[in-house]
Amino acid sequence: MTARDLADLSLVDAVDAVAMRETTSMALLEACLARLDAAEERINATIWLDREGAFRAAEAADKAVAAGAALGLLHGLPLAHKDMYYQAGRPCTCGSVIRKDFVPTVTATVVERMAAAGAYAYGGLNMAEFAMNPTGHNAHYGDCHNPWNLPYITGGSSSGSGAAVASRCTYGALGSDTGGSIRLPAAACGVTGLKPTQTRVSRAGVMPLSFSADNVGPLTRTVRDCARMMKVIAGQDSRDPTSSAEPVPDYEAALDGDLRGLRVGIPTTYFLDGADAPVVAAFEAAVAVLAGRGATVMRLPLPLMDAVSVYAGVLLRVEAAAIHAEWMRERPQDYSVQLSARLFGGNAIPAPYYVEALSRRGPILKAFADEVFGQVDVLATPTIRTCLPTLAETNIDQGSPASVQAFMAVSANTRPFNYLGLPAISVNCGFDPNGCPIGLQIAGRPFAEARVMTVADAYQRDTDWHTRQPPL
Amino acid sequence: MTARDLADLSLVDAVDAVAMRETTSMALLEACLARLDAAEERINATIWLDREGAFRAAEAADKAVAAGAALGLLHGLPLAHKDMYYQAGRPCTCGSVIRKDFVPTVTATVVERMAAAGAYAYGGLNMAEFAMNPTGHNAHYGDCHNPWNLPYITGGSSSGSGAAVASRCTYGALGSDTGGSIRLPAAACGVTGLKPTQTRVSRAGVMPLSFSADNVGPLTRTVRDCARMMKVIAGQDSRDPTSSAEPVPDYEAALDGDLRGLRVGIPTTYFLDGADAPVVAAFEAAVAVLAGRGATVMRLPLPLMDAVSVYAGVLLRVEAAAIHAEWMRERPQDYSVQLSARLFGGNAIPAPYYVEALSRRGPILKAFADEVFGQVDVLATPTIRTCLPTLAETNIDQGSPASVQAFMAVSANTRPFNYLGLPAISVNCGFDPNGCPIGLQIAGRPFAEARVMTVADAYQRDTDWHTRQPPL
Repeated sequence: MTARDLADLSLVDAVDAVAMRETTSMALLEACLARLDAAEERINATIWLDREGAFRAAEAADKAVAAGAALGLLHGLPLAHKDMYYQAGRPCTCGSVIRKDFVPTVTATVVERMAAAGAYAYGGLNMAEFAMNPTGHNAHYGDCHNPWNLPYITGGSSSGSGAAVASRCTYGALGSDTGGSIRLPAAACGVTGLKPTQTRVSRAGVMPLSFSADNVGPLTRTVRDCARMMKVIAGQDSRDPTSSAEPVPDYEAALDGDLRGLRVGIPTTYFLDGADAPVVAAFEAAVAVLAGRGATVMRLPLPLMDAVSVYAGVLLRVEAAAIHAEWMRERPQDYSVQLSARLFGGNAIPAPYYVEALSRRGPILKAFADEVFGQVDVLATPTIRTCLPTLAETNIDQGSPASVQAFMAVSANTRPFNYLGLPAISVNCGFDPNGCPIGLQIAGRPFAEARVMTVADAYQRDTDWHTRQPPL
Repeated sequence: MTARDLADLSLVDAVDAVAMRETTSMALLEACLARLDAAEERINATIWLDREGAFRAAEAADKAVAAGAALGLLHGLPLAHKDMYYQAGRPCTCGSVIRKDFVPTVTATVVERMAAAGAYAYGGLNMAEFAMNPTGHNAHYGDCHNPWNLPYITGGSSSGSGAAVASRCTYGALGSDTGGSIRLPAAACGVTGLKPTQTRVSRAGVMPLSFSADNVGPLTRTVRDCARMMKVIAGQDSRDPTSSAEPVPDYEAALDGDLRGLRVGIPTTYFLDGADAPVVAAFEAAVAVLAGRGATVMRLPLPLMDAVSVYAGVLLRVEAAAIHAEWMRERPQDYSVQLSARLFGGNAIPAPYYVEALSRRGPILKAFADEVFGQVDVLATPTIRTCLPTLAETNIDQGSPASVQAFMAVSANTRPFNYLGLPAISVNCGFDPNGCPIGLQIAGRPFAEARVMTVADAYQRDTDWHTRQPPL
C-alpha cells in the first residue's frame, strides 16, 4: 500500500493491517505525518510534535509483531490527542500560554490504557484555551481551521482532534466534552465523536474544566473505530473516584446494523428551534435512513430543555471560574480576552443558583428519563442547528451581540446532554452550501453507549459521508 | 418513686425501671409533663404538645411490658424532639410560621427507629427558625430561655432540646447540628450533646438546612444516655443515600472509664483565642480530670482553622439560601428580620467560592487528620469560648456590630467540626459567674463516636456537673 492509502485506512483496519503484517506501525506513522505535513500549514491542528518519540514507539511496536508478541486492541497505532492529556515527560499546554512549559510527571489513565493496548501518540493537538470554547479559537497557538473550508470554525474545544482526524493526519484522537467539545468538532469536521455517559471514562490525569460535566471520549473516522477506542479507555479507575463500576460491554460486537424495533425520538421542542434549512434537510434525510433500517420514528416534545440548557451553562461557568480562580488573580494577562471575560462572568453567578443547578440535576434526569425514554430508545437531533459560522463571525473578543449569539448557538444542541450526563454521538450526515459538514447527534440512556453507537454505525452502513475527505 | 424522682432518672435508668416493672411508662410520662408544666412558662421549650397521643403510647408500652413482650432499647420512654423531625400526621413547624400548619405524611427514619425501640414523643420542641441560629432566638414562637438564668441564651438551634433536657422535662431529645446546633444548647444548658460524624445518622425525613453539614444527634443528661440513643438511631438507611455503611459499634459497652494511653490534644491556635477567663479555668480543670484518668495531654497548634471556620459558614449560608430560595421569593414577609438578612447574604456569595469551599473539604480533612490525629487521639476545647451572652446581647435584628460579633462568636468553636465532618460531643464542665453552664467539647476522628463518648463518660465519672439541675 502507498503512504496515501495507509493514511486512508480506518483505525480498526490499520490495527488489523499491522497485526496481519500487511504493513508496519512505522509505515502508518509515516503516512499520518505525511498527511500532517501537507495539511498543517492551513489547518493548524497541532501544538507540538514528538516525531522522534513516535518513531521509537513505532519501531518497538514493529519489533513486538516480529517477535510474535500478543498484540493489544490498538497495537502499532499512531495517534495524537487534544493537548490536555498528561503524559509524563511530554508537553501538555492545555491550549494556554500558562501551561506552555508544563511537563507533567504523571500520565492520564486513558493514555496509559491506550499505551497498554499498543497505541502511541506523536504530538499534542490544538484546542480551545483550557478547553473552554465551542468554536476552536485560540489566541495563543492560533485558531484551528476547518479543513473543508478554512475560514470556518472547526468546532471546539477539541478543534485539532476534529481537524486532524478529518484530514487523515491521525486514525483517531482523544477529545474532551464539557458542553459539546467532542461532538462539535466531530460535526464541524465531518467525523465521528462520542461523549460517553458522565463517569463512564476516567478523568485521572486530564486537565479539568468543570468536574460535574467533563467527559473524555474519542474522535474517529467511523463508529467502529470509536467502539474500539471506547473498549480500551472505558471502565472504572481507582485513580478517578468518580468513575463508574458499570461493566464495559463489547462495543464492537454490538454493532450489528439491526435497528428493527428501535424507537427513535425526534424532539419537537428546543433542538430544531431556529435551525437552518440545509441542516434540517440533511437531518430529516438521516432520520429516513434510520427508518429504512427498521427504526420506528416518533416525534415528541422534550421537557425542561431550556432549564437544562441554562443549568448546563451554570455548572460549566462556575466550576471553570473556581478551577481558574488562582491563576485569574495571579496571571490575568495570560488569559485571552475571550476566556477571561467568560471566567469573570462565572464569579457573578450567586452560589445558591449553582446549588440549584446541581441539586436539580438528579430529579431532572429522572423526570427526563421517565418521560422520554419511556417512549423512545434514543433521541436524534442535529449536532449543530445552524450552518457552520466562520471564525470571524464567532469571534467574541469585541463582544458584539451577533458574535456572542452565534458563539452560544454552536453548543445549544450539545450542552443539554452534558447536564443530563447522557451518552451522545455525532456522525457526519451531509454538507451545507458552504461545503461544511452537518452533524447527526444520537443520544441515549445512561450507559447506553453500545446502543447509540449501534444506531450511528447502522447509519454509516447505508451512507458514505464518513468516507469523504476534505480537499488536500 | 415520686413523680419528682422519676423525672430525675437518667434515660437509661428510666428504661431499666420500666423493664424491671419498678415503674410504668405512664408514670415516666406524667413526671416529665409535670416538670414541663412547672417550667414551660419561663423557658418556652415547646412549640406543640400531643398529650393524648403520648398517653396512648404510654398505655400501649405498659401493656407490652405486662404481656411479657420483648422490649427494645428505649421501651416505654417518653421523649420530645426538636420540631423538625417529620412524624406522619403530627405537626412539624420547623420553628417557622411558614410550616405552622404543615403536617408531614412521612416519618423520619430516626423517629421510626426510636419508635421501633419503644420510645414515643409527647411534642415538638422549640428551635431557631428553620434551625438557622446559634442562640435560640425565635421571632415566631418566642425565644427559648436558659433555665439556669432566664435572660441568657439557651444556645441554638436546638434550643428547646437543650432547655427541656436540662429542666428534666424529657429524658432526651433529638437535635440537629449544622454549625453547632446540638453542642451549643448542650453547652449552654449544661447537658450532653453529640454531633456524630457526617453521614453517621440518617437525615431522611428531617428538615434540611445545609445538606453538606447537617447532622442528627441526641441531647441527653449523661453520656451513657447519649450512647443508648446513638445505638438506636445510627447506621445506614436506604432512604438517605448519603448515610454511611460503616458498622455501628456497641457504644455503651465502649464506656469503660479507661483513658490510660489516650492522647488528648489541646489546641494552641484558634479555639482559645479571646476566651473568657471563667471558661478557660473550667476548661483547664476539666483537662486535669482527663489527665487524672490516665490521659496524656498534649498542646498543639491546629492547621488551617481560620479557613475551616470561614468555609463552614460558606457551606451553611449558600446551601440554606438555595433551600429557601423559593419561599424567600414568594413569602419574604414570613421570615424573621434576622433570618432573611442571613439568607439574602448567602445570595451574595459567588458560586466559585462555594465550589472552593466544597472542593477543599476533602484535602483539608486529610491534611488535618494526618497532622493532628497522627499526634493525638481526641481534641478537647471549650464548646463556647465566652461566658454565655444574653438574648438581648445577641439580638442582631438591629444589626449592631457588637450584637453580630457576639452572635457569630457563639459557634466559633463548633462550626469547624461541621466543615471537617468530625464527631464532637459537649458535656457540662462548670458554671460561669452568671450561673450559666460551661461546655467541654471532645472531638475525634471520623466515626470515632465511641471514643469521644468514652472520654466524655470518663469525665462524668469523676465529676457531678451533669447531675446538677437548674432551679425550678
